[in-house]
Amino acid sequence: MTTATLTRDRSLLGLKELGRDEIESILDRAAHWEHHATKIDPVLQGKFVANMFFENSTRTRFSFEVAEKRLGAEVLNFSAAVSSVQKGESIYDTVRTLESMGIDAGVIRLKPIGVLAELAAKINVPLINAGDGNNEHPTQALLDLYTMRKQFGELRGLTVSIVGDILHSRVARSNLYALRKFGANVQFCAPASMAAPELDAPLVTMEEALRADVIMMLRVQLERHEAGMMSTPEAYREQYGLTVDRASRIAPHAIIMHPAPINRNVEIDDELVEHGQSRIFPQMQNGVPIRMAVIERALT
Amino acid sequence: MTTATLTRDRSLLGLKELGRDEIESILDRAAHWEHHATKIDPVLQGKFVANMFFENSTRTRFSFEVAEKRLGAEVLNFSAAVSSVQKGESIYDTVRTLESMGIDAGVIRLKPIGVLAELAAKINVPLINAGDGNNEHPTQALLDLYTMRKQFGELRGLTVSIVGDILHSRVARSNLYALRKFGANVQFCAPASMAAPELDAPLVTMEEALRADVIMMLRVQLERHEAGMMSTPEAYREQYGLTVDRASRIAPHAIIMHPAPINRNVEIDDELVEHGQSRIFPQMQNGVPIRMAVIERALT
Amino acid sequence: MTTATLTRDRSLLGLKELGRDEIESILDRAAHWEHHATKIDPVLQGKFVANMFFENSTRTRFSFEVAEKRLGAEVLNFSAAVSSVQKGESIYDTVRTLESMGIDAGVIRLKPIGVLAELAAKINVPLINAGDGNNEHPTQALLDLYTMRKQFGELRGLTVSIVGDILHSRVARSNLYALRKFGANVQFCAPASMAAPELDAPLVTMEEALRADVIMMLRVQLERHEAGMMSTPEAYREQYGLTVDRASRIAPHAIIMHPAPINRNVEIDDELVEHGQSRIFPQMQNGVPIRMAVIERALT
Repeated sequence: MTTATLTRDRSLLGLKELGRDEIESILDRAAHWEHHATKIDPVLQGKFVANMFFENSTRTRFSFEVAEKRLGAEVLNFSAAVSSVQKGESIYDTVRTLESMGIDAGVIRLKPIGVLAELAAKINVPLINAGDGNNEHPTQALLDLYTMRKQFGELRGLTVSIVGDILHSRVARSNLYALRKFGANVQFCAPASMAAPELDAPLVTMEEALRADVIMMLRVQLERHEAGMMSTPEAYREQYGLTVDRASRIAPHAIIMHPAPINRNVEIDDELVEHGQSRIFPQMQNGVPIRMAVIERALT
Repeated sequence: MTTATLTRDRSLLGLKELGRDEIESILDRAAHWEHHATKIDPVLQGKFVANMFFENSTRTRFSFEVAEKRLGAEVLNFSAAVSSVQKGESIYDTVRTLESMGIDAGVIRLKPIGVLAELAAKINVPLINAGDGNNEHPTQALLDLYTMRKQFGELRGLTVSIVGDILHSRVARSNLYALRKFGANVQFCAPASMAAPELDAPLVTMEEALRADVIMMLRVQLERHEAGMMSTPEAYREQYGLTVDRASRIAPHAIIMHPAPINRNVEIDDELVEHGQSRIFPQMQNGVPIRMAVIERALT
Repeated sequence: MTTATLTRDRSLLGLKELGRDEIESILDRAAHWEHHATKIDPVLQGKFVANMFFENSTRTRFSFEVAEKRLGAEVLNFSAAVSSVQKGESIYDTVRTLESMGIDAGVIRLKPIGVLAELAAKINVPLINAGDGNNEHPTQALLDLYTMRKQFGELRGLTVSIVGDILHSRVARSNLYALRKFGANVQFCAPASMAAPELDAPLVTMEEALRADVIMMLRVQLERHEAGMMSTPEAYREQYGLTVDRASRIAPHAIIMHPAPINRNVEIDDELVEHGQSRIFPQMQNGVPIRMAVIERALT
């Protein structure tokens, strides 16, 4: 194998192409880190990790930063919002610049679709996808799988409803790709304008969606409403929101998930965010050990 | 005592409810840190402190960051300007998210009034108030008390004039609450539109204010002038500014203070900022050991 | 010597006044760091370095931050865009504030011309110029010299063409001052509106410029085009850009340089950025050991 291939093997660009065993080993390693005795274990001492956010996301950046620091790495934060129409070269120049300065791995979030694969082919340090356009968000899906596995013991046979703006959701795609590998049943629930027919998963009604083991609500992009691409937030809640009334009809063993940040009382009612069946904040908690496992894998 | 009560005890939300002995022990511990032999003493190694600034303030954030790093803590900076009308939930969701990620303490600055107390009741890690609306700014007042105590040996019997926009000043409030506990006399000097009659302290003329042991000038919010809520900066200086002429009439033992940042030649003349009787930069210097003491108290 | 003089000796404000031996010793020390066995050598453990950027530049800040962390220093980032018309006092107040908080050295970038010298006279910790107005950018020129010396063995007798907006370029100035001390021949190539007649260096045509050993292209400020101070980017490329055609006529031993960030297909063609004769990314790589040498010199 060439060095480039090896580097790409340690990168994490998406879950679509990642083997089930690889995913499982990341989940297992995350379990190790979750229960680790000390907060900081400097296995990556002397390594430099750059968080390169070409799209704003203080929460995801923060989760990666905690993970990197718990592994003893030196953390460098670079953020520069880049418009989705801007050409990939300026992103390439920046990443190549940081690579020249000696970083050992890069965590990257960006809007333009397709740029990440090009980058990974040209850059010689491992890259970790922290969300690229509406393509993939692998660490989010990994923490979602981790949360489900922790709840149900195994993923095989689980029914997972993903509800909302599937069309623009990298979270939906990464979860679909990964859950399928483990024999889970993924179904989508979305208004016609937010469906993604090219994704091969059944589209169900809201009532059907509620019968699943996992009800994963997606964040509504309120900007779409402002741009006239969506009805009002109130109408959206009425049709696709997880209201208190709807939540009362989910199975007692079912759990509620959401990748956050949340629009309270739009896609999910205020009272449900910390409901006994909600795993929203545990998801965020699980994000840290998942990212520790992913970064450790990239650098060792 | 419950865990929640213990956590709240280690939080620092304001000085109004804090006992005199508690304040004194913080001042004493700050004196220890001020004269500490080595710059970094990793008593908080392995602890994660998040600086969560929902209102911009690079200076205060910087002072906390120096303090945290001198104690060996891992520092995470989160800043996201939040409008004062935005509901408290989005702040709660963010703080709860960071808590889920495993921070050990949070330093928080925010605009909306009343949100901090709600937060502290729901969050299980200690919170340190770095300024909330026009309510309190306890670490600023602690460093002010520290500066005065260093100058005069004790606070009892001191007369402290606080001059300027009392109405909107959290610095004035925290100083008032704390100084009173030590038997100091606090008096305000402000135009009618900037007075805060609900605060029980005498309102004096500028001439009377100059006769105090401490003349503490507050920052004028020039935006208020632009919004037509205040006369011109020149007129303000004329009536309430500490001019060179006025400063020549203060007592030889008196000191000049200001929480910074300064509008030179508005509330205080340029030549006075580093005048022999000014303690403005020493105040900033004292901020670091004060914050070390407060963070250490929160985490040990 | 007084303490102030000693501090100024450890500062790096510009190369105009720096002796040739001093520059050479920085280059030699950078060579040491470039080939250093371990990534982090904590010679500056317990030292606090503040990166104070009053003008945005994430790349330069990043390069300094990597250098500081490789030396084991504690890094504090402060950025606050300041308009070029804003008076120097607000910058002074900020730097003086950070000094009061106990930083051991400051890296500073700012727009207003002349402010840096004033600051250095009043501040008691060493300051490192990371770019001030159109005056100097000493660490950029040092890494440029380092790159040339690495390529050609020595600087004496080299011909260096600097092409583009000389008038507004601190990179051109710092390179001119430093290269002259080593007996290199510097020549400029610029449209009349971008020349700087007060700088004593020959102005050559683009064809003449191409015959040099080093062809250093400067970044075009596209804002000047928008403000009507410059023709179109296309016309600029036609007259002063390093096109593929022009690059085919440079000597086989010659190298292409650029301080970055690059406007691809304006001052330099896309295909040339990573051309075999380009040293653009190696320049960025060399920036880290250069800055390690400069910071180490400031603090030891």
